[in-house]
Amino acid sequence: MAVIVQKFGGTSLGNIESIKKVAKRVIKTKKAGHEVVVVLSAMAGETDKLISLAHEICENPDPRELDVLISTGEQVTVALFAILLNSLGYSAKSFLAHQVRIYTDNFHGRARIHDIDTQKIIKELRNGTIVVVAGFQGSNDQGDITTLGRGGSDTTAVAIAAALNANICEIYTDVEGVYTTDPDICPKARKLKRISYDEMLEMASLGAKVLQIRSVEFAKKYHVPIHVRSSFVEENGTMVIPEDKDMERVVVSGIAYDKDQARITITKVPDRPGIASKIFAPITGAGIVVDMILQNTSAYGFTDMTFTVPRNEFKKAMELVSVTAKEVGAEEVLGDEGIAKVSIVGVGMRSHAGIASKMFTTLADENINIMMISTSEIKISCVIDEKYTELAVRALHDAFGLDKPR
Amino acid sequence: MAVIVQKFGGTSLGNIESIKKVAKRVIKTKKAGHEVVVVLSAMAGETDKLISLAHEICENPDPRELDVLISTGEQVTVALFAILLNSLGYSAKSFLAHQVRIYTDNFHGRARIHDIDTQKIIKELRNGTIVVVAGFQGSNDQGDITTLGRGGSDTTAVAIAAALNANICEIYTDVEGVYTTDPDICPKARKLKRISYDEMLEMASLGAKVLQIRSVEFAKKYHVPIHVRSSFVEENGTMVIPEDKDMERVVVSGIAYDKDQARITITKVPDRPGIASKIFAPITGAGIVVDMILQNTSAYGFTDMTFTVPRNEFKKAMELVSVTAKEVGAEEVLGDEGIAKVSIVGVGMRSHAGIASKMFTTLADENINIMMISTSEIKISCVIDEKYTELAVRALHDAFGLDKPR
Repeated sequence: MAVIVQKFGGTSLGNIESIKKVAKRVIKTKKAGHEVVVVLSAMAGETDKLISLAHEICENPDPRELDVLISTGEQVTVALFAILLNSLGYSAKSFLAHQVRIYTDNFHGRARIHDIDTQKIIKELRNGTIVVVAGFQGSNDQGDITTLGRGGSDTTAVAIAAALNANICEIYTDVEGVYTTDPDICPKARKLKRISYDEMLEMASLGAKVLQIRSVEFAKKYHVPIHVRSSFVEENGTMVIPEDKDMERVVVSGIAYDKDQARITITKVPDRPGIASKIFAPITGAGIVVDMILQNTSAYGFTDMTFTVPRNEFKKAMELVSVTAKEVGAEEVLGDEGIAKVSIVGVGMRSHAGIASKMFTTLADENINIMMISTSEIKISCVIDEKYTELAVRALHDAFGLDKPR
Repeated sequence: MAVIVQKFGGTSLGNIESIKKVAKRVIKTKKAGHEVVVVLSAMAGETDKLISLAHEICENPDPRELDVLISTGEQVTVALFAILLNSLGYSAKSFLAHQVRIYTDNFHGRARIHDIDTQKIIKELRNGTIVVVAGFQGSNDQGDITTLGRGGSDTTAVAIAAALNANICEIYTDVEGVYTTDPDICPKARKLKRISYDEMLEMASLGAKVLQIRSVEFAKKYHVPIHVRSSFVEENGTMVIPEDKDMERVVVSGIAYDKDQARITITKVPDRPGIASKIFAPITGAGIVVDMILQNTSAYGFTDMTFTVPRNEFKKAMELVSVTAKEVGAEEVLGDEGIAKVSIVGVGMRSHAGIASKMFTTLADENINIMMISTSEIKISCVIDEKYTELAVRALHDAFGLDKPR
């Protein structure tokens, strides 16, 4: 007998028919003799519907109250699901975050779980009850409802699995697992049998479609094995697990890309101490995340600075930077929304040389100009012209032999 | 400065526009310097929509889970309302039942409030915050969500008013107050300025459209003055208040009627001890409420028994009674769904003679046959042929001079 956490996303819960299919999965696991905790998202589209209701009232709804509103989506699905299981003769109980004490900090809309009191869940599991927990929501120290951000139900599931020391956390979604790259742009993309937490984190731009990044951080911290799999087929998906020796033999595990990028360059910045902080303070102060930063070697006391920001923050960042640029006496500010970031990811890189140059050569062979480069221990990213994204991904996928099973 | 509880029903909260109108009312009260607690129902139609969602799954949804489901309706309105007030510059916070500790018993779908811990509400009121509480819902000793039955938000409002020792509980609805009778069938019906708790309780069949009966019992027990008024006009409505000497001068305050009735007669029942309990045990055991019971004088060791049940339980009651009738050796079981109960109500009846005979004469003058009669201290009810309901109500309304203001 194992303790198994099963999380189902909104696309698996679009209507009563889909919910019935999900119930079959859960019942099968229960019948196999396991203790089952089910974590559910809102029905597909519900959260967006609730948010637009709030926006009918005002542009910036009070964050505490917005969380009260949008957390109803999950409350509806867990109740319907428990009604269904009970009607089929299985003992099931729904629980909201405050009922199973999923405690978070106070950041409404993007709260982080800091504690779960599993007493109630364990008691119900021991009674043979299927425990159905509302994903996405938490409770702060005031007893207020918080929410964990888009995809937060993944984190609910992994956090509960961690707290229960569950044997596995299964994340059921509308794709069959984690792929070597996006199958939509690279038909040769292959489903990975397994991937390490760190690789999954670096694959963020792809992974975000499959798993909330924070859930992977949580899983890594507490060593929770995650099984990403499809709600619609029986086949195994991808295991997201701690790194092992075997994984290092594979040099590159996947190719990620991110079109949600824009580039800003400030030319002829007077090169004096503190200038970088002066430029970035207003941007980060506005909550804009700066990803890559590149500063050319200083010549004649001036330097060019280039950095990337999320594309939807581009306009705001340009405004802020233009002000600062004037203040510090830089020449001009150039912006480019037509860029993309392409990355190769793999824990094997650590012990293999020549990976970067192979990447650069591959791109050069396709006549793709590299605008910026950044590297980490297990990732190399290049910023390129957006229109070459698909070409670059396919070329790299071939070059590193990702189409071949191992 | 007063503490004022204001409750708004679903018809006042049909869409964002209506919600904005409700907000104006609340803000006006707040601006007048009062401490305001707002209790809200779900948006019109929402609760029914949620219930039919559950019925898509099964006929008899698990009651605990059904309460989790249907309580989301009020959660949505309180969040939207607090978002609106905050966007208009007024500090407001929404609270669910468990957050302001509205404790109930464990009867899902028809729970009774037994305690409210007002600490949190009082703290927020003292801070100048408008407290917005979800009606209809409660929390049992397990921390499970319960609901208080149709119209339960009235009871939430009155219970909070009682717990806070509020100056008044205003119930805003889609009618302008409590009328001497149903204006739809008697155009001369007049809005009452005031009515006693007991009269309001006896006017149940009319009152249920305006106030949940249980809220009146609550108000009576804790001496909470209720002001029933319209969300749509400024005018005063009807005060539901403790009885006073003045009220006794009015003999009849209102005429109620109830078409939701059916009559069952069992003929030639052997008249022996315990026979009544034998007949009624299966019916009440099935949760069917028997209203009036009439047993004729026994002749030759046999008696006829007649009683009324709610019309939607008629079939079930007939089946149960037919079985028992055979067992006890009665002659036959007759049913009649075409009946109505017409009642005159007034605390003044206690000290006035001749009221009953005036009622019977009035009906006789209209050639309306009285099938059954029952009386209480402040009410006389007659069962008549359903088709005469409107005629009877109008005749009685005239006979007791209810069209004349006092």
